[in-house]
Amino acid sequence: MAEETQPKEKPAMPREERPAMPREERPAMPRDVILVGKKPIMSYAMAALMQLTESGEITIKARGRAISAAVDVAEVVSKRFLSGNAAVKSVAIGTEVLGEPPRNVSTIEIKVSSKPKK
Amino acid sequence: MAEETQPKEKPAMPREERPAMPREERPAMPRDVILVGKKPIMSYAMAALMQLTESGEITIKARGRAISAAVDVAEVVSKRFLSGNAAVKSVAIGTEVLGEPPRNVSTIEIKVSSKPKK
Repeated sequence: MAEETQPKEKPAMPREERPAMPREERPAMPRDVILVGKKPIMSYAMAALMQLTESGEITIKARGRAISAAVDVAEVVSKRFLSGNAAVKSVAIGTEVLGEPPRNVSTIEIKVSSKPKK
Repeated sequence: MAEETQPKEKPAMPREERPAMPREERPAMPRDVILVGKKPIMSYAMAALMQLTESGEITIKARGRAISAAVDVAEVVSKRFLSGNAAVKSVAIGTEVLGEPPRNVSTIEIKVSSKPKK
């Protein structure tokens, strides 16, 4: 009767095959994307700085309340760390539908690129 | 001796002549600017909606923590209230130096304009 408990073999439908939620911290995310969350601004700013030095352009993303932190990160990197050598290239805002029940969550995407040195 | 107390005439240097602090909620601010603060999103969204219907373009501004609320307001107005009839035209971020001791505060400016109806 209780067939579901303790199957000897692996479950027929392993976790990975469930339709994937858009989880942006997964490897699918390119390395030059910084997803800003609840850590201190400076830890994202350092990561952004390193990535920017390496690849010349980064995208800083955030959702909901973390949006203001993402703006802080972009400003710290472009104005303080790399003053004059990096600039905000574009800022885009949008809406994602997340969770159950579905809720609209605002998003931001800030592209920062380093200027070629003369 | 105590000349300053109770002058019969108006004070020679009325309040208005003090060097003005950049207070954005003053009349100096054009009416099509919505400065987002700590009130509920919907109250700004309603104000933005009314202003947008009147003038065709609004600028939503915010500083610091209120930045995510400003993005919410822009998204609510352009996607929910005026879906298809308004769009975010531009988003700019910046830094202001405020307070004593001076602190860097991030800012955002979102321009939303209503599309002409066909």
